Parts: sequence; C-alpha cells; structure tokens
Amino acid sequence: MADQADITAMRRAVALAARGLGATSPNPVVGCVVHDASGHQVGGGWHRRAGGPHAEVHALREAGVLARGGTAYVTLEPCNHTGRTGPCAQALIEAGIARVVYAVGDPNPQATGGADTLRGAGVRVEQGLLAEEAEAVNVAWLTSVRRGRPFVRWKYAATLDGRIAAADGTSRWISSAESRADVHRLRAEADAVVVGSGTARADDPHLAVRGIEGAVQPLRVVVDTEGTAVKPGARVLDDAAPTLIAVAEDAATDLPEAVRLPRAERGLSVPALLDALHRRGVRSVLLEGGPTLAGAFLAAGAVDQVVGYLAPVLLGTGPAALQDAGISTLADAFRLDVTETVRIGPDLRITAIIKER
Amino acid sequence: MADQADITAMRRAVALAARGLGATSPNPVVGCVVHDASGHQVGGGWHRRAGGPHAEVHALREAGVLARGGTAYVTLEPCNHTGRTGPCAQALIEAGIARVVYAVGDPNPQATGGADTLRGAGVRVEQGLLAEEAEAVNVAWLTSVRRGRPFVRWKYAATLDGRIAAADGTSRWISSAESRADVHRLRAEADAVVVGSGTARADDPHLAVRGIEGAVQPLRVVVDTEGTAVKPGARVLDDAAPTLIAVAEDAATDLPEAVRLPRAERGLSVPALLDALHRRGVRSVLLEGGPTLAGAFLAAGAVDQVVGYLAPVLLGTGPAALQDAGISTLADAFRLDVTETVRIGPDLRITAIIKER
Repeated sequence: MADQADITAMRRAVALAARGLGATSPNPVVGCVVHDASGHQVGGGWHRRAGGPHAEVHALREAGVLARGGTAYVTLEPCNHTGRTGPCAQALIEAGIARVVYAVGDPNPQATGGADTLRGAGVRVEQGLLAEEAEAVNVAWLTSVRRGRPFVRWKYAATLDGRIAAADGTSRWISSAESRADVHRLRAEADAVVVGSGTARADDPHLAVRGIEGAVQPLRVVVDTEGTAVKPGARVLDDAAPTLIAVAEDAATDLPEAVRLPRAERGLSVPALLDALHRRGVRSVLLEGGPTLAGAFLAAGAVDQVVGYLAPVLLGTGPAALQDAGISTLADAFRLDVTETVRIGPDLRITAIIKER
Repeated sequence: MADQADITAMRRAVALAARGLGATSPNPVVGCVVHDASGHQVGGGWHRRAGGPHAEVHALREAGVLARGGTAYVTLEPCNHTGRTGPCAQALIEAGIARVVYAVGDPNPQATGGADTLRGAGVRVEQGLLAEEAEAVNVAWLTSVRRGRPFVRWKYAATLDGRIAAADGTSRWISSAESRADVHRLRAEADAVVVGSGTARADDPHLAVRGIEGAVQPLRVVVDTEGTAVKPGARVLDDAAPTLIAVAEDAATDLPEAVRLPRAERGLSVPALLDALHRRGVRSVLLEGGPTLAGAFLAAGAVDQVVGYLAPVLLGTGPAALQDAGISTLADAFRLDVTETVRIGPDLRITAIIKER
C-alpha cells in the first residue's frame, strides 16, 4: 500500500521526469527516486537525452550500495529490453532493490515486461501511484505511441474577441512579454515547431528557443506548399536550430532543406507531414499557427492539446485565431476539456484537450 | 486604527450591500453593521430598494439601545440630505453611535457632507477601510455618478476562437447550462438588459430573469433602429418585465413601447440611448449583444466592464463576438484589466474592465 512517503517520493520523481521534456525523443521522459531500506531518499535522476542512461540508472548510481533492500519509485514501468542502454529491470535487480513502485505501464511493446521480470526475481512491484500526474508529464510521448504520430499541441495568442491581428495586419504585440517568454518554454519542450506559409510570409519568424538555459533546440518546420514563402535569407534558415521546409511534391523550389510531401485538398497532407516528422524521431509538435494551418490540422484530427494565450484586448475586426476547420454547424464543433487556466502577466493561458469525436 | 474586528465587520457590511444589487437604483447599494460599545455585532442591514430605509436605519433598528456608544460600519459615507428618507448622519447621532467607519466617500454632491456632520456632533469618523471591496460592489452606481450615464457591462458567450455561432447560424448552445444560469444573476443585478435588432430577429429573446428568487426584473430594452425587428407577439413584449423599444426618430413603427431617439452614423445614438435610460433611473445596463451593438457601444466609449463566457469549443468559422468597434490598427485597440477568472461548469468566465483611453 502506498503511504504519504510513497506519494511524496513519486511526486518528486514526476518533477524530475519533467526536466527531460524536449530532450529525450524518441524516448519518454522518466524520473526515478530511490529510497534506502529505512525510507530515506538516497538517489534521484531523470532520463536526460536519448542514448543516455535511463532515469533508474542515474538514481541507482547516486544511491550506490544504499539501494540494497530499498524502494525505487519510477514514473514509467522499467524497461525490459536492451536498446542503446541495458534493461533497467535488470539494473534494479542487480542493485538489490526490494520494491519497485511505478506510475504508468509502458505502452511500448518493445519495452514492456519489466514488471514481470522484476517479479520473477522476487522484487515487490506496485503500479498506479500518481498515474494521472505521471501520464500528464508524459502526455506527448504516450500520445505518440498510442496514435503512431507525434503529439500535437496547438498554441495561439488572441484577443478576447478571438483575433490575432488588427484589420491592417498589425499584431505586435497582442500578447504580453510574459506570454511570449512562456511560448519559448513550450518550444523547448517540443521536438518540432511548425508554422505555415502565411506566418512565414507575414512574420519571417525565427522559431528557435531563446532565454531558456540548456534547452534543446526544436526542429523548425515551415509548411510551404508552393515553396514560395521561405526566401533565401529567411531567419528560419540560420544555424540556430535545424530546419525543415515541407513543400508539395510538384513545387518548383530549390530550397536545400525541402522535404517533398503529397498535397491534400488544401495545402499539404497533414498525416503525411506528421508521418515524415515521426520517422525523424519527432514525438511532439508545437503548432504555432496561423489560422489556416491550424484549421487544416484540426480538420485532419491531428490536434491533441490547445494552449491559448488570451490577451485582455478587444479589436472588433481582423483575422480570427482559427479558420476553416471543416465545421459548418454547432453540433459538429470541436469540444474540449479545459485542464488548466493560469494568469501569465496580464494575459490568461488556457490549456485544453480535444475530446474524442 | 482598524483592527481585525473592524475588517471583519466591514467585510460583512460589503456582503450585506451586495444583497441589494439590482433593486436600489437610482440609489447605491449600501450595507451597514453596528457593534455595541464592547465590540459585539448588534445590528446589520442593507438598502433594499429605492424609497425604503437606508442601510444604517435597518441596522440601527435592529441594534436598538445597544447602539449607544457603539460603532457603525458603513460601506458608503452616510448621507446628509433629506430625500425620501431622513439623513442617516442624523440617525446615527441620535442613536448615540460613538464611532463611524465608512469605506467609500459619497461622490454624489447632493448627499456628501455626512462625515462632517458626524464629526460636528463629536462622533469619531474613519474613512477608507476595505475601500476597494466596497467600490467593487458599488461599481455600477459609482460609475453612473462619475460618468453621468448608466454603468455598462457587456456580456458575451463565445468559443475559444471567439465565435458566437457556427457558419450556418446555429448557436444553441455554445455556453453551458451553468453559464446561462449565471447570466440570469447578471440580469438580476442590472436595471436594464439591452439587445440589438440582430439578436431580436435571430433569437426572439425573453430577457427576463428566471430562477432567482426575489429578483427585481430589469427593464428589457431592444435597440430596433428601423422598428422592424420586434414583431407583435415577440417574447420581449410579454408582461414578465417592463420593456422599452428604442427606434429612430423617423422609424415607421407603431409599437406602443417605442421610444424615439436620434440616429448615429450606424444605428441609434448610443449616448442618446444611455441618456434616455439614465433619466428613467437606470444606473446599470447589461448589454447582451450582439456583435454589432457591442461594437457601437465600444466605439462610443460606453462599455465599462466586460464579462465573457468562454466555452471550450472550437468552430473555425461563424460570426465573431465583436464586430467593428472603430479600431483598424493594434495601437488603437481597447486594452483591459482582467479582474477575475472563474470556472463556470465547463466554461471560463472572464471579467475585465476597460482601461481609460
């Protein structure tokens, strides 16, 4: 049975896991805390980057011989397979861990079975403690495993009346400096940042992470169907982060970073784009708009989470945050569950997940 | 000096004042708590309706002889003039109150001077305790005194992308049953509820308060410039609440409740409408839309507070919550301060005040 000390340890493990966000793909984020036999924390760690040691290995190294007879708290079921690193189940057994508490079962068929291996070696195994919190920190990776495509978070910034620019196109700035800094955190957590040709043309965005120490830069992706929006010298083509320009198979462009994808009825095929990104190891995408591309992603059923920065501003005219998502009547609208609302400077940040349709 | 007992007493007085919202116009809402000489609460009351006793009188009646040597906590400076009821300053003196603590000075030139009268009679007088809370509960009345027109609260309900209906016009329901019930509370707090001809045509709204016991029905106002939107038999013409139809001076209509007002560039003159309402004793208006009328009110500088019900819904097409408010570039946008955000069922209610321009 889990007691308060177990809960505290697992909460710490979840917090450790979160420190890996944006750096571990195609792997999940994982955190681990090790207690000695008398319940004192003697080790903690998290998976820092793909190819590096798993969370359990970091934590066991710190614990050393004190792990013997102790408990390991892990946010995800310990792996059972030998990939670029050895199986964690074996490492826990060899360290003499007597009890393993993990939050979420591993949905990855290659890695599953760790709990059985541990039990076979006489280790007490418990599952489910703080499962909801551990799922939330790993939502991108878990979604990518379940759907076979990257997790997509759509971010927008709009006025209270839903507009992203004034009638004359001016849009700097609707949201506050605090909100714009917060977006860099979202970028740092994502493997790829995606914009469309409209945004590329209007804003010449840079899309790299600024102001977050140690951040792994995301892949910058511009969906430029005709290959005409990203010009030589565009800021997105600098060397601050890798870049991928997605163009139509028949587009007349000689951009060196261009990847050719099939067209959809409007623009490029969203599933083909996500598939191409998935094959490159991208497990989480931050979709930064604009309204046309967001509509295409929504219509393709390819948005999992929405993060809206609402600025306390009213315009009354100007483009809306979202355009044609294939909905013409209210009964067909996308319905969401709000999971968090928080003030960011003068703005309001709303996080919501799209309900299954 | 105010101590914790003073703060508790004034907070109770503010809560009492709030019970009068929607029933006291053209008077403010006022709450009063009376403590005896040893600091025990012996009376409390609020101004219940125009023409009825003031809050102080209710509270002194309850306290009786126990008021002698005690303290009166009042949310607004006690009045000094003889209107439909006697001056409260005199009543406090006659009851033998030794100390009066009030939150907000009376901005009404006819009523001010109560504090001086009290001091002249040897009563200790202190001002400013919980002034912010007391201002907030009286914001409608205070604004109406300062601006010489009714306080205007614009309420809208929209999707996360700022839309009030789908492309085919379907709009029932975007917001939740909980939000719609909450709007009846806003109606009950208002002296008048105002809609435009578009809403009248599309929804045939009833606009009366339902489901709130003891609520004073607001004046129902339809801005029907051409006098063609409100048809005989419209729900707004029933006897559930009084109704006023505002039409242009030259409109060809024979609606019995019609009030004729000058035209503006588009529609009716908003200042003329507010002036007509003010002259009828209306001190607070709930503007329930739609987007055209809201734009006209904003453009006229006639919106003080915005209450937005944001439903976790995405549409991508359909009319926006706000249309043309005279803004074409971001530098001219209306900027607001968010004063409250609260979950109402699945929705989010955002309250904000328009910053001075």
